[in-house]
Amino acid sequence: MLVTFDDARRLALDILRGAGVPDGHADTQASLFLEAELRGRPSHGLLRLARVVERIRNGVTNPLTKGAHRWRGDSLLLVDGEMGLGPVVAFEALSHLTTRARSTGVAMAAIRNNNHLGMMGWYAEHVAGAGQVFIGFTTSEALVHPWGGRRALLGTNPIAIGVPANPRPLVVDVAAGVVSMGQIHDYAHRGQPIPAHWALDRDGNPTTDAVAAKDGAIAPFGNAKGYALGLGIEALVTCLAGAAFGRDVAGTLDSDRACNKGDLFCVIDAGLGDATIAQVTAYLDEVRACPPGEGVERVLVPGDRAWRVREERLRDGLPVADEVWGRLTRLARELAGPES
Amino acid sequence: MLVTFDDARRLALDILRGAGVPDGHADTQASLFLEAELRGRPSHGLLRLARVVERIRNGVTNPLTKGAHRWRGDSLLLVDGEMGLGPVVAFEALSHLTTRARSTGVAMAAIRNNNHLGMMGWYAEHVAGAGQVFIGFTTSEALVHPWGGRRALLGTNPIAIGVPANPRPLVVDVAAGVVSMGQIHDYAHRGQPIPAHWALDRDGNPTTDAVAAKDGAIAPFGNAKGYALGLGIEALVTCLAGAAFGRDVAGTLDSDRACNKGDLFCVIDAGLGDATIAQVTAYLDEVRACPPGEGVERVLVPGDRAWRVREERLRDGLPVADEVWGRLTRLARELAGPES
Repeated sequence: MLVTFDDARRLALDILRGAGVPDGHADTQASLFLEAELRGRPSHGLLRLARVVERIRNGVTNPLTKGAHRWRGDSLLLVDGEMGLGPVVAFEALSHLTTRARSTGVAMAAIRNNNHLGMMGWYAEHVAGAGQVFIGFTTSEALVHPWGGRRALLGTNPIAIGVPANPRPLVVDVAAGVVSMGQIHDYAHRGQPIPAHWALDRDGNPTTDAVAAKDGAIAPFGNAKGYALGLGIEALVTCLAGAAFGRDVAGTLDSDRACNKGDLFCVIDAGLGDATIAQVTAYLDEVRACPPGEGVERVLVPGDRAWRVREERLRDGLPVADEVWGRLTRLARELAGPES
Repeated sequence: MLVTFDDARRLALDILRGAGVPDGHADTQASLFLEAELRGRPSHGLLRLARVVERIRNGVTNPLTKGAHRWRGDSLLLVDGEMGLGPVVAFEALSHLTTRARSTGVAMAAIRNNNHLGMMGWYAEHVAGAGQVFIGFTTSEALVHPWGGRRALLGTNPIAIGVPANPRPLVVDVAAGVVSMGQIHDYAHRGQPIPAHWALDRDGNPTTDAVAAKDGAIAPFGNAKGYALGLGIEALVTCLAGAAFGRDVAGTLDSDRACNKGDLFCVIDAGLGDATIAQVTAYLDEVRACPPGEGVERVLVPGDRAWRVREERLRDGLPVADEVWGRLTRLARELAGPES
C-alpha cells in the first residue's frame, strides 16, 4: 500500500511517544526511519520500529538518555551510549563534534553501548550538508564470512563518507557484505533463490537457497578486498569504542540483548570555501557525464538514485508492506491504551 | 635473479645519494622500496627507483624538503609537500601527528604537492606498531572507471587501516581497482591475456588483451560498491588536501609533471592498553581459525602472506627482474660519475 509521508510520520511518532520516548527523541528516531523509507531502503525503515518498542519494554533501550561524554584530549570524544536510541546518541555526539571541529579542525567520537544507527549515510549528509566533511564507521552482529572461510565472523561494518557538493553533498555508504541480510530475507519471503556467490548456508557451503542463507553467512563484497576492509573496520571501531568483536556482538537484530557494537565518527572542518565545493561538484558532474557502457543508461553518482526515489515518494507516498503497516497500526492502538 | 637484502639496499642508497638525496631521506625512500620488495609487491619497489631519479633531474621532485606545515586548529595539519620525496614528506607529517595525537587524541594531516607514497600499509604499520591507530587515504592518476562508465575517471585511491595487535599490528591496505595497473603491465609483459571483467580498452569496451587494457581503464573492485568507495575517497582527500581531481592528476606515473594528488592521514591515540590489544589479537586469531572453504588451505588475515614472504626473502634474498637490476646497476655507475 501507499501511505503519505505525513501519515507514516504521525504513526511513527504516536508509537514512539506511546512507548515513552520524549518528543525530541521520537522526532529524531522517526526521521531516520522515514528517510530510509523515502530513499527506498525499507530494511532500515519502519520495519524496525516495533523492535525499538520491544527493546524499550525489555529494558535494553533507554529512550531518555543522550549518552555520557568524556573528552580524551581536545579532539577525541569517548561516548557511553547508555543504551540510548541509536540516532539520538549519535546526533548528540555529532553536535559536539561539529562544534569542536570548528576550533580544532578535526574531532572524532568513539561510541559504545549505543543502539542501531540506521542508515550511516544520513549522518554523513547532515554533516556535509553544513559544509564539514564526515567519515563514519560502525559494526554489527557477525553476518559476513572471511574470504575463504565458512563462518560469519565479521559485521557488515559500513564506512560512510560525506563531502560538501551542490546541490547536495556527496554521500557514500558502503557495507562490507555483497548484499545485506535484509535483502536475503526479502528473497526468502518471496520464495526466490538468491544469486550464486552471495551466501553460505549454516554449514559453510555455498547456497542459492535464501532460507538456508538466513542461518549462514554473507560473502564479503569484492572478495578478498572487501573482507580486508571489513576486518580493518571491525578492529578499528571495536578497539577504540571498547565494544565487542565478531560473534560476541548482539543487540541490533534481537529485542532483548544490550547492544554492544561500536560506532566511530570523524568530523573535519577545513573551512572549505565555495571554490572547493564547486570543484567537487564539477568533478561529480564529470563522472555523471562519463559515456555509459553497453546496456547502461547513464553513470550515477552514489545517492543519485535514492534522491530521485525520495522526490517521487514525497510526492506520491511511501510503499509500505500491508503487513508492516497493519502491525504498526495495531501497535499504536495498543500503546494508546484503554483510554483510546 | 636473487639479490641479498643488503646488496639491494646498498644499490638503492648509492643511487639516491648519487642523485643528491641527503642520507636520512635516502634511507627513508630506500626502506620503502625494499619493504615492498620484501613483501612481494615489486610494483611498489625498486622498479620505481629510476623514476625518482628522473623526477629529481627534471625538477619535479625536491629531495631536500620535508614539506611546509601549518596547523589549522590543534588537530588538522595542512602540509605543502613542496615536491618532496613521498615517504620523506609523509613521515615528517606522521611524526607531527603521532606527537600531537598524544595530547589531542586525534590528529590528521591533509597533504598536497607530495610525491608517490608507495605502499600505504607501511605507514599504517609504523603507527600501529607503536600503539596508535592509523587511517590513511591517498589518490592517484585516473585509472579506474566509474561503475557502468567507459572512461577512467577515478584514482586507485587506497584506504589503509592500522590497528595494534600481537605479534604485529593488523594492517589493511585496499585500493579501489579490482587489480593494479602494475599487474596489468605484468600480464602484458608476459604476453598473457587478463581475466574478463578486469578492464576496458581505450574505447571503453571490455577486453582481455592486457596491452589494450594499459591504455584503458581498470574496473572498480566489488562493482558499484568499490566504485562508490573510490569516489568517496577521491572527493574526501582531494577537497581537504587542495589537490587535483580525476583526469587532472599527474606525477606518479610520469617523470616530468608535478605530482598533484592528495594524501590524508589520521592518527588516533586512545591510550589502548594491553588488554585491548590482546582482544584485537584474540579476534584475529579466531578469524585465522575459521574453518576454510572447499579448496582453501586456511583463512588468512591481511598481511599474513606478505609477512611470511618477508621472512623468506630476508633469509633467501629478493627476486629482482634481471632487467630492473641491470638498469639500476648502470644508473648507479652513471651517477657515481667520471671519478669512479
